[in-house]
Amino acid sequence: MPDVYVIGTATTAFKRWPETTHRVLTQWVLDALERDAGLPLARTEGIWFGNCALHVFGQATSRGQVLLSQPMASGQLDASTSIVNVEAGCATGSLAFHGAAQAIAAGHANLTLAIGVEKVFLPQALEKTRELFDGAMDQLTPEVPTHFYEHAAKAHDLDYAPRPDRIALLDVCALQAKWHMNTFGTTVEQLAASAAKNHTHGALNPNAQYQKAMSVAEVLADKAVLAPLTRAMCAPISDGAAAALLCSGEALKTLPAPVRDRAVKLVGVELASGRYRALGEPSVTQVCAQKLYRRTHVEPSAIDLVELHDATSFSEIANLEALGFCAWGQGGAYVASGAASLGGERPVNLSGGLVSKGHPLAASGLAMVHELTTQLRGEAGPRQAKNVKTALWQNAGGLTGFDEAACAVGILTR
Amino acid sequence: MPDVYVIGTATTAFKRWPETTHRVLTQWVLDALERDAGLPLARTEGIWFGNCALHVFGQATSRGQVLLSQPMASGQLDASTSIVNVEAGCATGSLAFHGAAQAIAAGHANLTLAIGVEKVFLPQALEKTRELFDGAMDQLTPEVPTHFYEHAAKAHDLDYAPRPDRIALLDVCALQAKWHMNTFGTTVEQLAASAAKNHTHGALNPNAQYQKAMSVAEVLADKAVLAPLTRAMCAPISDGAAAALLCSGEALKTLPAPVRDRAVKLVGVELASGRYRALGEPSVTQVCAQKLYRRTHVEPSAIDLVELHDATSFSEIANLEALGFCAWGQGGAYVASGAASLGGERPVNLSGGLVSKGHPLAASGLAMVHELTTQLRGEAGPRQAKNVKTALWQNAGGLTGFDEAACAVGILTR
Repeated sequence: MPDVYVIGTATTAFKRWPETTHRVLTQWVLDALERDAGLPLARTEGIWFGNCALHVFGQATSRGQVLLSQPMASGQLDASTSIVNVEAGCATGSLAFHGAAQAIAAGHANLTLAIGVEKVFLPQALEKTRELFDGAMDQLTPEVPTHFYEHAAKAHDLDYAPRPDRIALLDVCALQAKWHMNTFGTTVEQLAASAAKNHTHGALNPNAQYQKAMSVAEVLADKAVLAPLTRAMCAPISDGAAAALLCSGEALKTLPAPVRDRAVKLVGVELASGRYRALGEPSVTQVCAQKLYRRTHVEPSAIDLVELHDATSFSEIANLEALGFCAWGQGGAYVASGAASLGGERPVNLSGGLVSKGHPLAASGLAMVHELTTQLRGEAGPRQAKNVKTALWQNAGGLTGFDEAACAVGILTR
Repeated sequence: MPDVYVIGTATTAFKRWPETTHRVLTQWVLDALERDAGLPLARTEGIWFGNCALHVFGQATSRGQVLLSQPMASGQLDASTSIVNVEAGCATGSLAFHGAAQAIAAGHANLTLAIGVEKVFLPQALEKTRELFDGAMDQLTPEVPTHFYEHAAKAHDLDYAPRPDRIALLDVCALQAKWHMNTFGTTVEQLAASAAKNHTHGALNPNAQYQKAMSVAEVLADKAVLAPLTRAMCAPISDGAAAALLCSGEALKTLPAPVRDRAVKLVGVELASGRYRALGEPSVTQVCAQKLYRRTHVEPSAIDLVELHDATSFSEIANLEALGFCAWGQGGAYVASGAASLGGERPVNLSGGLVSKGHPLAASGLAMVHELTTQLRGEAGPRQAKNVKTALWQNAGGLTGFDEAACAVGILTR
């Protein structure tokens, strides 16, 4: 099976960008990608385009075909290159990456592109943003998740009172956090330690939405969202775009030395679906990571650096356990120990994570790939980790019970 | 690169099904697929799910994850199997097939599933159906296509007067048909011959939306839609679902003889994007077919049977030319000669085509695969073609100028 390399990545700054069109974000990230790769994108043989929210702007189908028509007309991209639109909520960017990698692995292309573009902040229609996030859950038979969560809360004697003015994902996350705290003794200070760490990392990332280091006390003192979560523990509403250029090992040999020298190798990327599981059962992230570890023969102990899906700081703790970086139930203590901080044994979310960097749905997974690629190349400046050889990202989206509906885990190496 | 086989296909009847839910359509087609393949679907290692219109029903993201949660909970599908949601307008089903095939070709899976589910008919909100189809065109910078079509019509002295109460695709199709008639002498009787042929084929397909044979005179006498198109020359609004189960050559060897005996081999499938081209320039279907012919070393003359995208009967004529089955400009004469009819040299749209079988967007491409597979197996009953060894399907969706925004062409063989 052909080897797959990442030879270029790019991300826009993530922020609220109400005045900037999807076309502008798309063009910006393509230009940045072309500069980063040092190769014309016109050689691209297939494009995987991720987006979740364009239907709110009136473009429900042919999303990538519409947004890439101008770079195709200008010749920046080959006019006939295929475009596959992919989507699975907040995991969308990683699905785009997965498709682009698979085309190379199948021997069907030598150079492919994955791109995610998202505008989520709608100042004139804030209820649309909430609807978008609620769409991550079952809207066709909404009684199924409703009964599931109510039953689980009752069985564990936990508060669960979603409100129509609040993104429902937060209530589900808070419910899981409370169960974890009751079961394992995880503390709100440990959740805050995750958020403080990521905000402190994000202060070193010029593309992060928030660039302000925070202490545990500051995170705890921030605006309450829903106990145990404060605002600083939750990913903000963000716009942005990110992209990656992938290349076969065979074609890489023919490219200029500067491209070869900065290439990062894909060890593997795996997808999995969530299920209606009990709170104490393995999560979709654990299932997905186990599949990946088995297939790649990489052990969690070999991972030097991690970008993971901290939609809330509780998610970071749960995902660290699911990925096998600490014992079950010990994610809070692991983060509070400093192990996951810049300078620690295995830095996690040096980009700032979703809580600081921001989370423009379809762009988030590709921004994780961008951060890992930048770190593996040693180009991360003040937030550069030391001795990074092997790095993992985890990106998940939608909700099926307590699992994300879709999960992606991937490993890159130098 | 591993070989890819189709070892099961299924389709619901295509029709207007306002009372039937997406879940029912999904379950029905999975059950039919399991029966057809004679294998438990629980062994599936990856699912590509196509849908264009679920956002109208409130489910804009995680579409497949929501619709497959019940078969996953029941154990019919493995609960952790990955689901990639794909979309590109009316080409969506073929994108699902392409993803499922690529996973096998990449050596990443031995058994994959492609499924397309669509409800388009909304009796309580007919304007939504129109919006859905208009969404196939650029809605973000609508002045771009508007100016393009107006300019092209003026340059060729052709009528072009879209109306908000009419699906815009029809006006663009009629404009192209008029140019073709002026340039090549194609007649309205030749367009009607295509429609009459497909309605006559559809009368033999129990899953077709219309099952009434029509003569050329009856097609011409049908309700006028927009000159030169009558209602019988246009695909109706349809609901439905279709699916295919794909298997690696290696895994096929381990399966029971009845599965091996009915397996159909994928020669290749190619995708391409449309562009803002002049009326006389090669279409995206020609570009896509040429890519496929080059890669597979199959000549058009080797194709025994075709399913192609006749969103209107003009599309059938244009696509026959683009696929290389007749000379440029001679599609009308080719169809009128009977060459494309059951019993002719190369039958086209024995399923009835979109104009008779119906066109539930994301399901249409997979229904084409179903028809070809059924024919290649010799299981098509009264509409069975003779001596079918190699068969081609063409499926396209969205609009970029005069091209479909996305096009897929694939070849299957016994």
